[in-house]
Amino acid sequence: MKNIEVCYSPALYPYYCNDNAIVVVSDILRATTAICTAFENGVKKIIPTGSLDEARTWKEKGYLVAAERDGRVLDFADFGNSPFNFSPRQVKDATIVYSTTNGTQAIRMASEARHVAIGAFVNLTVLAKWLVEKDNDVLVLCAGWKNRYNLEDSLFAGALANALTESRKFKTICDSAVAAIELWKLARTDIKGFMEKAAHRHRLKKLGLDDVIPYCSTPDSTGVIPLLKDKVLVEHRDYDSVDSGIRDGI
Amino acid sequence: MKNIEVCYSPALYPYYCNDNAIVVVSDILRATTAICTAFENGVKKIIPTGSLDEARTWKEKGYLVAAERDGRVLDFADFGNSPFNFSPRQVKDATIVYSTTNGTQAIRMASEARHVAIGAFVNLTVLAKWLVEKDNDVLVLCAGWKNRYNLEDSLFAGALANALTESRKFKTICDSAVAAIELWKLARTDIKGFMEKAAHRHRLKKLGLDDVIPYCSTPDSTGVIPLLKDKVLVEHRDYDSVDSGIRDGI
Repeated sequence: MKNIEVCYSPALYPYYCNDNAIVVVSDILRATTAICTAFENGVKKIIPTGSLDEARTWKEKGYLVAAERDGRVLDFADFGNSPFNFSPRQVKDATIVYSTTNGTQAIRMASEARHVAIGAFVNLTVLAKWLVEKDNDVLVLCAGWKNRYNLEDSLFAGALANALTESRKFKTICDSAVAAIELWKLARTDIKGFMEKAAHRHRLKKLGLDDVIPYCSTPDSTGVIPLLKDKVLVEHRDYDSVDSGIRDGI
Repeated sequence: MKNIEVCYSPALYPYYCNDNAIVVVSDILRATTAICTAFENGVKKIIPTGSLDEARTWKEKGYLVAAERDGRVLDFADFGNSPFNFSPRQVKDATIVYSTTNGTQAIRMASEARHVAIGAFVNLTVLAKWLVEKDNDVLVLCAGWKNRYNLEDSLFAGALANALTESRKFKTICDSAVAAIELWKLARTDIKGFMEKAAHRHRLKKLGLDDVIPYCSTPDSTGVIPLLKDKVLVEHRDYDSVDSGIRDGI
């Protein structure tokens, strides 16, 4: 029986890290949803970067750069953090350097782990199926908001933990996984309604960026699992498990 | 309108601390329950200490010392961490030095805050009433388990946050408070049943120490609010708000 654990914040990662685990990084609003969308729309590679200096250096080398802080696109960047930015026209066959307030920093933090996958509601089912087939424990690392707990990442963690424990290949003795599963069971019939309670939804609304929330809260629009290989995100696609295609309008 | 926030782990405290807040430290199994019980049973002062070296030094000076790590009483200590140790016979009029795995370390961490109170299910109602009357924001600091999230402290945080928001003197825009309130609403009709899910309950059971769980999960057996003054815990008692008395059998 494999273990599933949930870490609610990058600041707690040292107390959860597990060499045998596949670390699933989750930043639902919006980085990991955007990463899945980019691969769905044909991006070749995504280079997650922590610092803005690093992102700026990549830009000077001629790379396409997506960068935001606190929801705002940075002046030197080609575009920001909305999944709607990562359209086929923008990203097909491209290599993108990506730096965000929370998500890409969490990916960088997890990058010492043997296996790192990118999780979001948009790839929930295909990711759960893939994890069930692997031999590893799973640790969901929620990107949170500036090291604080957030609702949307925890809700996703609960959805994934619930799917894995229901497969009977996973168990949990982790209190944060137990709490996340309870939260998910409470919210799953009205995910969008529950997301109304999230603090980050209010931040995005103030910036006029909350149009992404329905898309970010809707499970299974893609069959892509982005994986970190040598500090670069590449695509693993499971064509059999989800009837996916490039989304209309994205 | 005052704010209520919840911090799930001492490792997250730097991202939540608020100079205007009363910090309520919660370590339901067992330190903060034991501290409330000690004051209920007539202790004069409790000196919370972080390190064991410090606790040992106090012992050498002739103080009564309660000290445990990972649930076990330490060899140099007079007793451990069970609320049942803090009986009137043991503690009446005494000054006790107290060092535990999580709880007293969280108290020490919070000690730079202007106001620090001790919270547990055993003093839930009197504490909520007192906080409603004060002018300050409230931050619940969950002691957790070695910096990991735990169910029982979060459940208490949800119970307190729910009581404060229901008073209409408090609001919250803190995702961890929102999640804790949802968890509490789910669990409140069967707190003891919900505590069965907690990882620490299993740890205590292995050590034969889980007899305290029903006591620690039962609200309002005391009218005492322990407060930290100059790094020492003293008693604030609200005789009017709870019909309290020394518990039978403790």
